[in-house]
Amino acid sequence: MINGVGRDIPEKIAGIKNVKPYVDPFSNVPIGQITGPRIVANKPRSEKVLQSIEQAIDAAGLKDGMTISFHHHFRNGDYVLNMVMAAIAKKGIKGLTLAPSSLNTINEEIIPYIEQGVITAVETSGARGKLGQLLTSGKLSKPTIIRSHGGRARAIECGELHIDVAFIGAPACDTYGNINGVEGKSACGSLGYAMVDAAYADKVVAITDYLVPYPLFPISIPQTQVDYIVPVEAIGDPKGIASGALRISKDPRELLIAQYAATAIEYSGYFKQDYSIQLGSGGASLAAARFLKEKMKKHGITASFGLGGVTAPFIEMLEEGLIKAVYDVQDFDIPSIESIKKNRNHQEMSASFYANPHNRGPIVNQLDVVILSATEVDVDFNVNVITDSNGVIMGAVGGHQDTAAGAALSIVVAPLLRGRLPMVMDQVHTVCTPGETVDIIVTERGVAINPQRKELIKNLKTANLPIMDIEELRDLAYEFAGKPDPIQVSDKIAAVVEYRDGTLIDVIRTTV
Amino acid sequence: MINGVGRDIPEKIAGIKNVKPYVDPFSNVPIGQITGPRIVANKPRSEKVLQSIEQAIDAAGLKDGMTISFHHHFRNGDYVLNMVMAAIAKKGIKGLTLAPSSLNTINEEIIPYIEQGVITAVETSGARGKLGQLLTSGKLSKPTIIRSHGGRARAIECGELHIDVAFIGAPACDTYGNINGVEGKSACGSLGYAMVDAAYADKVVAITDYLVPYPLFPISIPQTQVDYIVPVEAIGDPKGIASGALRISKDPRELLIAQYAATAIEYSGYFKQDYSIQLGSGGASLAAARFLKEKMKKHGITASFGLGGVTAPFIEMLEEGLIKAVYDVQDFDIPSIESIKKNRNHQEMSASFYANPHNRGPIVNQLDVVILSATEVDVDFNVNVITDSNGVIMGAVGGHQDTAAGAALSIVVAPLLRGRLPMVMDQVHTVCTPGETVDIIVTERGVAINPQRKELIKNLKTANLPIMDIEELRDLAYEFAGKPDPIQVSDKIAAVVEYRDGTLIDVIRTTV
Repeated sequence: MINGVGRDIPEKIAGIKNVKPYVDPFSNVPIGQITGPRIVANKPRSEKVLQSIEQAIDAAGLKDGMTISFHHHFRNGDYVLNMVMAAIAKKGIKGLTLAPSSLNTINEEIIPYIEQGVITAVETSGARGKLGQLLTSGKLSKPTIIRSHGGRARAIECGELHIDVAFIGAPACDTYGNINGVEGKSACGSLGYAMVDAAYADKVVAITDYLVPYPLFPISIPQTQVDYIVPVEAIGDPKGIASGALRISKDPRELLIAQYAATAIEYSGYFKQDYSIQLGSGGASLAAARFLKEKMKKHGITASFGLGGVTAPFIEMLEEGLIKAVYDVQDFDIPSIESIKKNRNHQEMSASFYANPHNRGPIVNQLDVVILSATEVDVDFNVNVITDSNGVIMGAVGGHQDTAAGAALSIVVAPLLRGRLPMVMDQVHTVCTPGETVDIIVTERGVAINPQRKELIKNLKTANLPIMDIEELRDLAYEFAGKPDPIQVSDKIAAVVEYRDGTLIDVIRTTV
Repeated sequence: MINGVGRDIPEKIAGIKNVKPYVDPFSNVPIGQITGPRIVANKPRSEKVLQSIEQAIDAAGLKDGMTISFHHHFRNGDYVLNMVMAAIAKKGIKGLTLAPSSLNTINEEIIPYIEQGVITAVETSGARGKLGQLLTSGKLSKPTIIRSHGGRARAIECGELHIDVAFIGAPACDTYGNINGVEGKSACGSLGYAMVDAAYADKVVAITDYLVPYPLFPISIPQTQVDYIVPVEAIGDPKGIASGALRISKDPRELLIAQYAATAIEYSGYFKQDYSIQLGSGGASLAAARFLKEKMKKHGITASFGLGGVTAPFIEMLEEGLIKAVYDVQDFDIPSIESIKKNRNHQEMSASFYANPHNRGPIVNQLDVVILSATEVDVDFNVNVITDSNGVIMGAVGGHQDTAAGAALSIVVAPLLRGRLPMVMDQVHTVCTPGETVDIIVTERGVAINPQRKELIKNLKTANLPIMDIEELRDLAYEFAGKPDPIQVSDKIAAVVEYRDGTLIDVIRTTV
């Protein structure tokens, strides 16, 4: 079956239930009811605090073949996933589906457990390094399922991803299970992804290095969802959890891309009082914030809200009154974590509130402008953020699909070349975000506007931007770097990429 | 079948599914999964704001036989229930089940719709005046189901109470459905009861007199749960929604009861640093707060949290640092509403977090002390708060069952007599709260301790309280007022009283 972005999706894929090819961004109307976790009663003054992770695994009734989840707010400082997997492996439990909100390089420690069959399937937003290579190798018994942050929330809520046991790294937790992410030595800020796991998993285990007397507030995850609590020495390495405020890029190519993106926003027609914006965490995105800030000051425009994975440039704009409120699913740096702790205009949100396409409206639906990064883009404006130029998984879909679909204006920034490789091409190796939801592609050599967006083309005419057709951009890339040979793949499907609505937008085959 | 408090519960009751008699407070272990609402998708930039309640009724697909819900935070100032019912009646829809969190006297306006068959069944925490009389009359086609606040949250979450359309009175609402209760001319403070309805109803309609630009925060009910928004002139009468801070009682009998209750707490063994407390909103409860405050200051004790339906005495204690945090499901007066708006230590909570016995632990499970009112108590310590001395519904169960079961020490305060009627008796007319969960009964003439609570009896020996057996209290009451004739009832069951776990603790028969 050829899907809505021209990809050939087999009618059946071993290990994937109900293969449904992607059609277009909004035509897949959901049916049925939201699911819920097992009903559990808890008597007054009962004890939730256990002595060890092993005890919690037993208490939660974890068995062969079950699905377990984790959240990735601790980023490259995460100890929880590795620690829990080691304890599970020691118990001899096998055949688990690992369904974290995403995987970081630090989680390479779990590779032996995949090789030993403790983990036999993975569902994630992405993976990098050796883990990405392993997931592309086809060695797992089922294809890995790649989902966006909104798509994962959707899959959990509708029951497609049923979590038997969720392990929640809890920067602060009281003795009855109220959790927040803003206190303790491993503070990570928002717990937006974990909020969905806690609400729908049959069993929820909080793992904390800051157990406090009852009651803890503010509450990100409430006691009503938490079964067990395990105090441990450390749930993460603060240095890996959050960096200091990133310095704005000095790379002239990134600065040029950032400047073009900011100018495109300025002239787009969406740059109005009370507009809303999300920025990615890539170098060009962060740099664009600086240029945008200047333009906002110049025009006397303030934004109604900023959205995202939150970084320091947003916090500066919030504190300067240029953005009225920030909605936060994840924090990337220390200034953002400090802000969500103290600033009432900095609001925590769940991944469902952020981006789930199948609720009564996530906040991405109210987004005016988003700036997104890309690994590859093609002449149909399709974007790849998951596989590298060798066809190997090395990134994450994150909120890419979600914000591109939700925002009135979605701008993708990418260098025309990376090293000797063209980044604008005839066909991306893996479609993550469909071109229909991408409006502008900005490179350092030229800016291409989606031909469907007539009004936008008109508005940007006076912007003094190097506007060209997407095919011209591709030709330029090929001229510099040559047309790349297609990546040779086998028939074996190592992973499927879901669109946020649960349909399949592409498959990732093992390379040969 | 004779249930756990000695009441005869028929094996079948027409109109009630799965009659299950009450056994004891905690032995009914829940099974199954939490339910969820219909999955609804909402496209970017779609419009939720409608022009009229009639339009919202149509859009929500309300049909004969469905179940609709409301919340009672506007108390005797509520316009929403009456307004919506008038619009529904005008459309000719019939046979609805009305399932508000409670009913107030102002809702007597809907009596014609019950008589006309627009409403044919009611599920509520209670009713007063003419509505109470009507619900006791047996004129409805099904018995009214009386549930506690925690029991209602439980019934909604497990699907026993499935809400087709929830109408939410929204003191402040933005154009995409984010709601809070702390802003606007009809501010009522916490929206704790409505939070459960919004999370589980198939369709959710927000009715507001303060529609604000996107985005509104803080958020009590999120956009992800709201389908439609209807702006109207007024959703309530501020004078009826909240009173000023109530003056502490000058009734010497209430003051004496309050003093005994405070002394009982002081000597109970639970009056320790970081204890927790809930007070009722009755005169004696409020007066007890004053005495307790003095004792806390004298002993240098502060409370970890206060809980409830919140009133001004709690706010004073919060602001003076005598209580570290207040958790709030409903506000009764203006000082409480102002506090929840501005004080970060004053936390909003849902009815499920408050009191649902079938989640992983509501906050009542962590409660040390509660002071509760009663209409009648009996020698088994059973409490009636729902029917008057004529057997007519004139009260509400509220959080009575929930806090009595959750608290380590539950104190029931009641006058020995009301007018010429004894309030301590052989058998209460209707059991709402089982004696097994009641520890002390305080009247102006004597204090009775549940004989099961040996430790408590020992602790209170030195308290200089007029301690006597519950039978002595009853004898005293009968001596003054005579033994009342039993209320004559028919076989017809007008209402059933659920215990918080969904079993039947009693039935209310029509009087003859």
